[in-house]
Amino acid sequence: MKKIFVSILTMALAVSAMAQQSLWNNSQIVSPQVNPDGTVTFRIQAPKAIKVEVTGEFLAPTKLEIPNFGVFDVPGVAALTEGENGVWEYTTPEPVPGGFYNYNFQVDGLKMLDLNNMHVNRDVANLTSVLLIPGGIGDNFVVNSVPHGTVSKVWYPSEAGYNRRMTVYTPAGYENSKTKYPVVYILHGAGGDEDAWVTQGRATQILDNLIAKGQIKPMIAVFTNGNISQEAAPLEGSFSTGQPGMSAPKQMEGSFEKCFPEVVKYVDSHYRTIAKKTSRAICGLSMGGFHTLYLTINYPDMFNYSGMFSAAIGVSDPSVSPLYQNVDEKLATYFSKKPGLLWIAIGKTDFLYKANVEFRAKLDAAHYPYIYKETEGGHVWSNWRDYLVDYLQLIFK
Amino acid sequence: MKKIFVSILTMALAVSAMAQQSLWNNSQIVSPQVNPDGTVTFRIQAPKAIKVEVTGEFLAPTKLEIPNFGVFDVPGVAALTEGENGVWEYTTPEPVPGGFYNYNFQVDGLKMLDLNNMHVNRDVANLTSVLLIPGGIGDNFVVNSVPHGTVSKVWYPSEAGYNRRMTVYTPAGYENSKTKYPVVYILHGAGGDEDAWVTQGRATQILDNLIAKGQIKPMIAVFTNGNISQEAAPLEGSFSTGQPGMSAPKQMEGSFEKCFPEVVKYVDSHYRTIAKKTSRAICGLSMGGFHTLYLTINYPDMFNYSGMFSAAIGVSDPSVSPLYQNVDEKLATYFSKKPGLLWIAIGKTDFLYKANVEFRAKLDAAHYPYIYKETEGGHVWSNWRDYLVDYLQLIFK
Repeated sequence: MKKIFVSILTMALAVSAMAQQSLWNNSQIVSPQVNPDGTVTFRIQAPKAIKVEVTGEFLAPTKLEIPNFGVFDVPGVAALTEGENGVWEYTTPEPVPGGFYNYNFQVDGLKMLDLNNMHVNRDVANLTSVLLIPGGIGDNFVVNSVPHGTVSKVWYPSEAGYNRRMTVYTPAGYENSKTKYPVVYILHGAGGDEDAWVTQGRATQILDNLIAKGQIKPMIAVFTNGNISQEAAPLEGSFSTGQPGMSAPKQMEGSFEKCFPEVVKYVDSHYRTIAKKTSRAICGLSMGGFHTLYLTINYPDMFNYSGMFSAAIGVSDPSVSPLYQNVDEKLATYFSKKPGLLWIAIGKTDFLYKANVEFRAKLDAAHYPYIYKETEGGHVWSNWRDYLVDYLQLIFK
Repeated sequence: MKKIFVSILTMALAVSAMAQQSLWNNSQIVSPQVNPDGTVTFRIQAPKAIKVEVTGEFLAPTKLEIPNFGVFDVPGVAALTEGENGVWEYTTPEPVPGGFYNYNFQVDGLKMLDLNNMHVNRDVANLTSVLLIPGGIGDNFVVNSVPHGTVSKVWYPSEAGYNRRMTVYTPAGYENSKTKYPVVYILHGAGGDEDAWVTQGRATQILDNLIAKGQIKPMIAVFTNGNISQEAAPLEGSFSTGQPGMSAPKQMEGSFEKCFPEVVKYVDSHYRTIAKKTSRAICGLSMGGFHTLYLTINYPDMFNYSGMFSAAIGVSDPSVSPLYQNVDEKLATYFSKKPGLLWIAIGKTDFLYKANVEFRAKLDAAHYPYIYKETEGGHVWSNWRDYLVDYLQLIFK
């Protein structure tokens, strides 16, 4: 057998790739590039383009007020400048603070991903490129050199009539101990699924990082799919394989909440959990905040800690499910059992702000205890990631 | 609290999305669309474009011969036609056979993903849109209504000096039984990682589907990361976070193979495996075929079944590692132990075809038994997916 060297393999593979160049990307362009001074440069090779822009959450947003709905942050836009070989470039004028940012290019008005950046996320039916910068809050989201938990996609039998998928995080060390752990259930919003908190939410990195710093106890985290009409996220189930959307059949009409005890039962019987109320927490964003509220008050012996992030309070007609009825009575029962924490967080410009004000007024009138956090911004992942970081530090104390 | 209805939530969310329209995609365009007659329509809204094409593996390829390297399939290209509202469209003239196809658009020569299609895969440093069609071999790759195994991303301690990540598939029923299972180790090629077989390779769907049809035994599958210089796939580790490439430090110089017993030890001690040679199989593509060969002959008591898919035989200088030396002796020892299967598969136009011919000649000269499968095509995933389907049906018999 002849001696051939590795470089020959990589050369041959490169030739193979070149032959497929319409599918493969042989560009030597680096984008995004974090510069030593903390600024970030974006590049795209588009020799025939007339106008190239980048839009993303790292650019100062403009405000858009829509009557009856609220004020929305419209991501900023910056123009790239064409240089040699049709390579367009934009460098931020200031360092980009640590954090997680979605962005895209617009080439002559056409939305494009940054195809030199392998970090792509899906949010509902939208693909975006991701810029992840360490430092500050970004340190919660990046993969640090710390022990990592196991992330599993697990199928469990459901009363819905089919097996359903959830994501389960077990903390580092789980596999090598006999320790029992508390469990936090983390719920997504409308249009999301069991992947959303793990991709856009960076929840498993947040858990790894906070556990490693000793800021939270090691815990199991469970990410369910709150769309009872789906087996799993788009592309992962055998039906509902079409384009994901904000609305799904049987959304917020009680079925998900009705079935939820099966999830807790599965987790308690298949993982080393501390299977009691004081070691069980739940939280969720938007629709998941709505689910959190109704799961909390309908199963008052299940969760000791509840977190409502930008919760979609009051958006469902109570007549659709008994689970949404007799809220005052249920709240009274829930609070009579002295839960460990009800945590409510929302941004000042969130279109659900007013509904949350009204809900808190109801709690205040009855002198029910809760902790409230109000932030800048609206109904966006940048808030929800931060809320999760805050909330996890308040539970299992 | 006022009654507001779910439709208000979705409307508000839609408004929120609209405000972020540069990041979000509010297009009503369906692409790709599988038509009742089996043809497929691709669409993209690009009002300012002059020329829009689609290129993909579903189009008949053209052949490109490169002396000393072989013949390569260059994916075909088809032109889209502009219709109303700047929506360009192309419908295949014939039904597209069941299967898995990568494709992209080219808008005025600029590569673009199909942003109406949420199915995006990364292969090395390349992003492509994916078209997955049921029927025929496609039925191996789609998510069918069958029991699904659990897919976990697991970190294990490595002699490399850091924890490393692997993907572990446990078959449906694993969590609800005390059964012990055989294990197949499935290795990626240069530029790949512990994600490659799961994304481009559809290996977990293949396993689910073949197990459900009774064509293979329920088994555990382990997908390692063969780049010993990496903790994990790009974006998933705390270092080597840059752009992935075909070559990586310490590639094919023995370190991966030297450390490999730690993987088997971890799997046997953390999963319910049948921890013996007759219940252990290994296979790999390209570099992973090379790894398979050297793992097989250096640890002749470890694997009873070995599959070399388009194996990169002879591409490394034997002097770089004692593991690559004394191959004749090691082959003699390996075959003296009467292994269950050595399976070799390659495509006729693969640039590694000749190296495989030479290797088989060596086996033939010594009258060593093996099974050989020769297919059309070259060094491509469409072959490797099919090889995996074939190979899995030959092991643990």
